[in-house]
Amino acid sequence: MDTKAFERLKQNSQHDQRQEFGCKTEVADTWKQPPHLVKANTTPGKAAFNLPAYMGERQALVEAALERSISVVYPEKIYESMRYSLLAGGKRLRPILCLASCELCGGTIEMAMPTACALEMVHTMSLIHDDLPAMDNDDYRRGKLTNHRVYGEDIAILAGDALLAYAFEFIVVHTKKVPDQRLLQVVAKLSHAVAATGLVGGQIVDLESEGLQNIEIETLNFIHSHKTGALLEASVLSGALLTGSDDKILQQLSCYARHIGLSFQIIDDLLDVTSTKEQLGKTAGKDLRAQKATYPSLWGIEESKRQAKKLVDEAKAKLAPFGERAIPLMAIADFIIARTY
Amino acid sequence: MDTKAFERLKQNSQHDQRQEFGCKTEVADTWKQPPHLVKANTTPGKAAFNLPAYMGERQALVEAALERSISVVYPEKIYESMRYSLLAGGKRLRPILCLASCELCGGTIEMAMPTACALEMVHTMSLIHDDLPAMDNDDYRRGKLTNHRVYGEDIAILAGDALLAYAFEFIVVHTKKVPDQRLLQVVAKLSHAVAATGLVGGQIVDLESEGLQNIEIETLNFIHSHKTGALLEASVLSGALLTGSDDKILQQLSCYARHIGLSFQIIDDLLDVTSTKEQLGKTAGKDLRAQKATYPSLWGIEESKRQAKKLVDEAKAKLAPFGERAIPLMAIADFIIARTY
Repeated sequence: MDTKAFERLKQNSQHDQRQEFGCKTEVADTWKQPPHLVKANTTPGKAAFNLPAYMGERQALVEAALERSISVVYPEKIYESMRYSLLAGGKRLRPILCLASCELCGGTIEMAMPTACALEMVHTMSLIHDDLPAMDNDDYRRGKLTNHRVYGEDIAILAGDALLAYAFEFIVVHTKKVPDQRLLQVVAKLSHAVAATGLVGGQIVDLESEGLQNIEIETLNFIHSHKTGALLEASVLSGALLTGSDDKILQQLSCYARHIGLSFQIIDDLLDVTSTKEQLGKTAGKDLRAQKATYPSLWGIEESKRQAKKLVDEAKAKLAPFGERAIPLMAIADFIIARTY
Repeated sequence: MDTKAFERLKQNSQHDQRQEFGCKTEVADTWKQPPHLVKANTTPGKAAFNLPAYMGERQALVEAALERSISVVYPEKIYESMRYSLLAGGKRLRPILCLASCELCGGTIEMAMPTACALEMVHTMSLIHDDLPAMDNDDYRRGKLTNHRVYGEDIAILAGDALLAYAFEFIVVHTKKVPDQRLLQVVAKLSHAVAATGLVGGQIVDLESEGLQNIEIETLNFIHSHKTGALLEASVLSGALLTGSDDKILQQLSCYARHIGLSFQIIDDLLDVTSTKEQLGKTAGKDLRAQKATYPSLWGIEESKRQAKKLVDEAKAKLAPFGERAIPLMAIADFIIARTY
């Protein structure tokens, strides 16, 4: 990349990040907890919070909602293909972040669930298209054959398209008890996070960087803040948007999301180096073989771990003003560091 | 995000585009009906209506709006690829239908233009993905090399994804003076028309039917009422939805749209048999080579022409209650029969 291109990258990237919610380092807090929430959340206490149980419960709710979200009707093949990848398990991190953020802001699981499902549909689309022979050419995902290996490339491309389009309809048609304006904000946020301004933009730079020597850290950050980060941020923010949260809260949550997003990716890179295919449920070591720049390749393993930890600590600090209500999101940040798949 | 913040986001987004293009003239203003068009539309009498002039004017407005809709910023390649296909010409039938329907229902070009552009983005996505080697494997489209032949398959897949996602953001962020509820209806209608319930569903049955003998007319109708018809119907209906039209009007317009949609496809099939590559701007005779069931192959050429004409007559009859305001949509129906490309 030439100097001009790099300057544009920086400006763009900063612009993207700042245009809606600037990321101030200090979040000074006059936030007051609504009484009913204080009450609801006083029980657990930090020590008492059981993340695996919490994640398990939420995953089960999300799985059930996803299961109901797509029926198999004529023409069956396309619905089967969409369901094959959508219901292939996975952490359901994006939906869970959306639900948690909505609850943190005083909303309910019920009002956030359609958006949570839509986020997983969009994420699944990106995985299906990512795995195609013309892209990463992967045979396995979440321990199962990839979509195109089961249904063929043509149907896999179309299943991705259908999931992406359906995500928007799903939000609009199934969300209850949320004012129209907020739903439009969620639609805009989600599409911005997927298009060339988000996930696709990150993916493009990732493809362009493959095999190149001397990838700059700024390029790697651009890739991941867009390829993974944008949708994670949209997950957290959409939960808050549904409740009509104000700019200040959105800003705090955006900072949290961007920090955990980057940390998530560093850990992902580390797992690609240190895990087996069985642990990951997908091909391991592929970054290395594809000569992809990764955080471990730039920083080494130990420094990568340190940076991931630092980002998570910073993410958690952003949530301090929310008190006990932020416990789930804080615990999820810790989970990102601790995960092994 | 509160109302103020959302308004800022909308302003920001427009501001960005004007800066990038050096497009300092009022974007919204250029979408307003120029006086000569207002005059043209109120001109009474069927005989006076000049369809080529009308189509030419509308095409020019749509081209200008599409040109402004996507700037080339970092990472340039994806935006170039999106623009390459989006700005490759074409009839702009879907945007023009949307504008015409909106005006018929008392709305303005200004309020419909973002949706009109979004419809063309979605249509372009479907063409890019349709042309991929894993699908129709086409080298030419609108007289130019197909997207993947210029940018590679990976970028073509991503350009399609980005156009699809961006279409929804574009409607939400750029539409002015339309109540939120109506915008949500447009978003739902568009996504339904693209997903497995629409375009993708039609495409799947089309792929499954390839090379099969004895395709039933019902199957062929399903393919085309979904693959082509759904988006054409969404084009007509979204224009009406933006004006808050009642169910009765929506139903009449839906009938009109479905009839012209099927007629459009019959003519498309006929053109594939009777035209040259130069006339079509894309590979000719490919249905025959791919052993695809078509209307001419089922009915023969003459009967296909008769059916297409009958559908257009029925479509026009549905618009009779609208009187002179329906003249443009009626003329567009006639154009569908008369077209040679």
